[in-house]
Amino acid sequence: MAAQQEHKFKVIGTRPIRHDGVDKVTGRAQYGADINLAGLLHGKVLRSPHAHARIKSIDTSAAAAMPGVKAVLTAQDFPEIGPGMAAMGELPINPQHMSLNCIARDKVLYDGHVVAAVAATSPHIAEEAAKLIKVDYEVLPHVQSVVEAMGDKAPILIPGLGKGEDGEPTDTNVANHLQFARGDLAEGFAAAEVVIEREFDTSMVHQGYIEPHNAVAQYSSDGQSTIWVSTQGAFTARDQTAFVLDMPPSKIKVIPAEIGGGFGGKIPIYYEPIALMLSKHTGKPVKMVMSRADVLKATGPTPGSHIKVKMGADKDGKITAAEVWMAYEAGGFPGSPVGAGCMCVIAPYDIENLQIDGYDVLVNKPKTAAYRAPGATNAAMGSETVIDELAEKLGIDPLEFRRINGAKEGTAQPAGPKFGQIGFLETLEAAKDSDHFKSELPQVEGRRVGRGLASGFWFNAGFQSSATVAINTDGTANVVTGSTDIGGTRTSCAMIAAEVLCLKAEEVHPVVADTESIGHTDMTGGSRVTFATGTAVYEAAQDVLKQLKERAAKSWKVDADKVVFQDGVFTCTENGNESMGLKELAGKLPRTGGPVAGRASVNPRGVGPGFATHVVDVAVDEETGKVDVLRYTAVQDVGKAVHPSYVEGQMQGGVAQGVGWALNEEYVYGEDGCMQNTGFLDYRMPTCLDLPMIETVLVEVPNPGHPVGVRGVGEVPIVPPPAAIANAIYNATGVRMLDLPMSPPRVTKAILEKNG
Amino acid sequence: MAAQQEHKFKVIGTRPIRHDGVDKVTGRAQYGADINLAGLLHGKVLRSPHAHARIKSIDTSAAAAMPGVKAVLTAQDFPEIGPGMAAMGELPINPQHMSLNCIARDKVLYDGHVVAAVAATSPHIAEEAAKLIKVDYEVLPHVQSVVEAMGDKAPILIPGLGKGEDGEPTDTNVANHLQFARGDLAEGFAAAEVVIEREFDTSMVHQGYIEPHNAVAQYSSDGQSTIWVSTQGAFTARDQTAFVLDMPPSKIKVIPAEIGGGFGGKIPIYYEPIALMLSKHTGKPVKMVMSRADVLKATGPTPGSHIKVKMGADKDGKITAAEVWMAYEAGGFPGSPVGAGCMCVIAPYDIENLQIDGYDVLVNKPKTAAYRAPGATNAAMGSETVIDELAEKLGIDPLEFRRINGAKEGTAQPAGPKFGQIGFLETLEAAKDSDHFKSELPQVEGRRVGRGLASGFWFNAGFQSSATVAINTDGTANVVTGSTDIGGTRTSCAMIAAEVLCLKAEEVHPVVADTESIGHTDMTGGSRVTFATGTAVYEAAQDVLKQLKERAAKSWKVDADKVVFQDGVFTCTENGNESMGLKELAGKLPRTGGPVAGRASVNPRGVGPGFATHVVDVAVDEETGKVDVLRYTAVQDVGKAVHPSYVEGQMQGGVAQGVGWALNEEYVYGEDGCMQNTGFLDYRMPTCLDLPMIETVLVEVPNPGHPVGVRGVGEVPIVPPPAAIANAIYNATGVRMLDLPMSPPRVTKAILEKNG
Repeated sequence: MAAQQEHKFKVIGTRPIRHDGVDKVTGRAQYGADINLAGLLHGKVLRSPHAHARIKSIDTSAAAAMPGVKAVLTAQDFPEIGPGMAAMGELPINPQHMSLNCIARDKVLYDGHVVAAVAATSPHIAEEAAKLIKVDYEVLPHVQSVVEAMGDKAPILIPGLGKGEDGEPTDTNVANHLQFARGDLAEGFAAAEVVIEREFDTSMVHQGYIEPHNAVAQYSSDGQSTIWVSTQGAFTARDQTAFVLDMPPSKIKVIPAEIGGGFGGKIPIYYEPIALMLSKHTGKPVKMVMSRADVLKATGPTPGSHIKVKMGADKDGKITAAEVWMAYEAGGFPGSPVGAGCMCVIAPYDIENLQIDGYDVLVNKPKTAAYRAPGATNAAMGSETVIDELAEKLGIDPLEFRRINGAKEGTAQPAGPKFGQIGFLETLEAAKDSDHFKSELPQVEGRRVGRGLASGFWFNAGFQSSATVAINTDGTANVVTGSTDIGGTRTSCAMIAAEVLCLKAEEVHPVVADTESIGHTDMTGGSRVTFATGTAVYEAAQDVLKQLKERAAKSWKVDADKVVFQDGVFTCTENGNESMGLKELAGKLPRTGGPVAGRASVNPRGVGPGFATHVVDVAVDEETGKVDVLRYTAVQDVGKAVHPSYVEGQMQGGVAQGVGWALNEEYVYGEDGCMQNTGFLDYRMPTCLDLPMIETVLVEVPNPGHPVGVRGVGEVPIVPPPAAIANAIYNATGVRMLDLPMSPPRVTKAILEKNG
Repeated sequence: MAAQQEHKFKVIGTRPIRHDGVDKVTGRAQYGADINLAGLLHGKVLRSPHAHARIKSIDTSAAAAMPGVKAVLTAQDFPEIGPGMAAMGELPINPQHMSLNCIARDKVLYDGHVVAAVAATSPHIAEEAAKLIKVDYEVLPHVQSVVEAMGDKAPILIPGLGKGEDGEPTDTNVANHLQFARGDLAEGFAAAEVVIEREFDTSMVHQGYIEPHNAVAQYSSDGQSTIWVSTQGAFTARDQTAFVLDMPPSKIKVIPAEIGGGFGGKIPIYYEPIALMLSKHTGKPVKMVMSRADVLKATGPTPGSHIKVKMGADKDGKITAAEVWMAYEAGGFPGSPVGAGCMCVIAPYDIENLQIDGYDVLVNKPKTAAYRAPGATNAAMGSETVIDELAEKLGIDPLEFRRINGAKEGTAQPAGPKFGQIGFLETLEAAKDSDHFKSELPQVEGRRVGRGLASGFWFNAGFQSSATVAINTDGTANVVTGSTDIGGTRTSCAMIAAEVLCLKAEEVHPVVADTESIGHTDMTGGSRVTFATGTAVYEAAQDVLKQLKERAAKSWKVDADKVVFQDGVFTCTENGNESMGLKELAGKLPRTGGPVAGRASVNPRGVGPGFATHVVDVAVDEETGKVDVLRYTAVQDVGKAVHPSYVEGQMQGGVAQGVGWALNEEYVYGEDGCMQNTGFLDYRMPTCLDLPMIETVLVEVPNPGHPVGVRGVGEVPIVPPPAAIANAIYNATGVRMLDLPMSPPRVTKAILEKNG
């Protein structure tokens, strides 16, 4: 359908100014911390200074006695949530762990874990009061490496987490083990000409969104509550808060504030239930805003990991077997994205014999959260560098090696299901055709230069979305969705409605509504919004169009099937002379039955997976180990780019974050288990000075599961960069980097080791 | 349909706590003046001190030079709107007059007419600066009585308003003349045994809502604008502001604040375009809030009027003819509710020969606006007292006299169309059966006591409404409408959805949305919300139910028509054992196709007219002329009372306002044409000390044009009180009061005249 429509898109594929652009550049957009209410109190928390400790007692009396303090709460003031799993949309969650992560009850599991909260008349008083809370801790030994945490002698974070053969609870830090296997590994490796086996360590890294977490909450005496918060999902925040506070979700209304970045990290809740509980205890609205140190220490970064990859290929370059072992840091509570890592690690390739083992391992670090293609970047660092080495050993061009093994329609994914229409081979072709790939390597005096290539995969998500579309009296339209707009989805959704209704993009006004004003909509994540919410918008606009045809038919006293709509004009097929534009018809709505609005709610199953192939040139300073990215080209199958500029922006943003992850970013912990780099001066993210202009090539293999062919585009671009850069460093220096970040000390060390 | 369903209503007809109650009693509800934005400026206006004057020049330089002043605007800074009519929904409006009423251009037409506006960093600075604006006026003679304004020598407010026989513009203050006539008047009067002819004068009165008008506006550099305002209609405010500022309506987003009363007076715009223009000139959001004097002097009260009623009846009490002449004060611009007065004046009666003439007359007073059954109360003062006199003269009980002539299904209305199923006779019957009617007149020492009766009619309105209904994950529902909630319509709409979905009222969360978040919805007025928006909610809930049945069917793998829904449970008729509740089904939505939301937009035509019959006992102090209301019973056909307490509240509120109008309220103008009682100390509204507990009797004759039988209920209760009280005063004292208010001086004077 998409392919058939392609030739006649009028709005989709153009680059209008984003609807929220002026709001954002003029400061009119209201972020969470901008919310002010009459009588507002301010909340602050006390955090654990230990990586692992038992809470013996908490004395809040001095804090409570401080003038201006209105409430001091500990976990004892929150409902105790029992064990067991619950569902949030289609995703399983553990309300007990979520509750304990928001505020510790008996134990703290990481440096920065919240132990108490204060509401006061000013943030300064609240902060001072929090310091007066006395906590008596029994400090416990901590463990921060997954390998150690899996060992027999490791301190146990959550007792009874495992299940023995007899079904009884056992003590382990391994929260989950999953395995995908098919074919015969031994046979596969036996058929190989070359087998490569490597081990990798990657560090915990943070999304680094500009805006810290926040929440403003108001608890009303009838139990009806309102939370204003920067979140990736108003409904998700509502449901999680309801779980933690043991309330019916519909008793909570979440009003989404504008969001200053999330990348997955603003899906879990942190301050929402605390602010609401403080409001309940004080009878006033309470605002809480994190500092950068709070964000880094105690929100949800993406896990560090230990990964082993063993792959073999025959002399023709065909991969004969792949064995992958991955252990991901869950943080203090279960739930790393190791499952997604397993789904993605070798997904771009058609491999008959494989075994992938994934372990979700507790360590005394913050509970990890989603971060842009969660789990896939760590995994690709392993698989894509091993593939580079296989190709090298076989003397096959690495791009050609990927082409030989590349997945296409009908290839079975590691998890089993077969791919539908995908564009991985097309990205390889486009990369090969790119200016960058065809160019000579630039030379930099005093540096070693090299070029690397890597591919990546992300499955993308569907999930539930709702939308309404209404016609204004002047013939323009409004689009209401429940999807937080992080990457320009107000505009992509407006453009989809505009396409259906033959309006200009700027004639459609997109609104992101609260949890009471639109049907249920899952979070903005998994690159799902333009796909799933876009589908809902498309269907709601079709619902509008159907009604408009009925109205035109009513005006002309004919049956609705005698009306066609083309190029913004309704025409009566029974009387060729009768026609009217949408704006004219809009003026007739009052007298043909009233206003026209359409709705749709969807849970679309035709998700289109995303593939990317990246090319990078680097210059390595062998003395200092500093790696400069000279040129970077990201090629990606985007299905159909609704707004190409924002698709390019997503690709560039993903690459920028991937470069940071590759070269500099890492959580540094001291021997005491406490984080040592809790600010952006020490937690080193790339700035514009660290990056070249990132070139993008959009490959458009339409997704047949979406009405205009959209695939998710936001996540896969973060997957290839570390591996691509590692391959480029090898190309430049002959050194295979196996650990992230590939920071100057590590690169220097590796070069020194190689040079003996 | 309603009648068939009646026996099984579970929610409709109960009295749950209103959804917005806690918000309002705890101060959490945000009214217009509560809106605060970063960088907010404050606007004030300069108003004309003259009733009629030409503006020769305006010097704003001193005001503009004052520190803290950011903009000073006059009409020259606003687009000049040309003549001609436009449509707002189905109602005609005159954008030019609307513009000139917001800010005067060449002439001021009433005391308080806005001539200039200032935005400054504080409201005090803005107020002081406004005083520095120098306006050079040429004062013109003014006219404030409709009779004088219709005379040949009257000063002309708007030149060229009339049209001569040659089609050329003529100078007149009569903006409109309409006439309903049928039968043969002369023949009718000839057949009469008794003919009564009386002339009446009623004063201009104000709705007296607690909350003054306000507007906060923000104009963005891309022309996209937002207005927060307490208004009876967000879409109406949007469309009017767009007309006045010559903008496309969709460029303006109106966010409705909570409203502290409107009664019709918050349908027109005043500060909306001024605040937006000040924001455009300053680049900052601007807040404007009226004082009580601003509200009384220059918003839209309901007109004073001069009315002549001549009616005849034969000896059996059958009315043989009615001739009514009514001239209503339009104020400075055309548009009094005289047309509605003509539709209502004798509508409760079946009269063969009639002529009703209505005149809309400009006078140098504020442009009138709607006020609860606009035009009908003035009219009923005339017709219902003449009927009382006719009955008296014929020796027929006034209730019986009304029964003899009462309209019923099939009776032609004065404007032509025949009534459908109505309940006027039922109100007479219920009044006769009431405790009050059957009781003895109470005696009060030193006072004359009397009982009076009057009936009233209001046609009620339909117009356009939109609604969406969505199911929450916990099986509760949200209802979104665009209707300002003045009289409890959040709750009545929620109850209608709850009835359809077999939920409790408190399990449905009603939201009043902004102009971008819901389909077009006309203003809250004409007692239309529970009727029209209620219809939209009913249909949207049915849309939800239809989808839920499909989902249940999908779970059971049967066709949707094999699923029935009763008492909150879905049952499969193909397999009697399979059933599940709504909450259980809500949990299955993610895996049966996603969330469920329904929508409907309507312009329902089956409006149910409202009739009321009121009984009042009064005590008159013949020395002071003070009239005390001893007992008051309001009987009304309410169709179906969705929430009886709020229906009773509407009836009690209407009576309270009608009593004020009857006994005390009036605009007092000096010889200079300026209003002399611009505060609530001098503009005397009734307080609780002036009123007894008002008894209510709900008659329920279902409206077949509404899915649960609803008629509008908010307006007709204000119609009978002045006439009922006049009839009671006559019964007590033998004096026929012909003018409103029947204030102590007037009553004393009438008694003295009667006693010679």
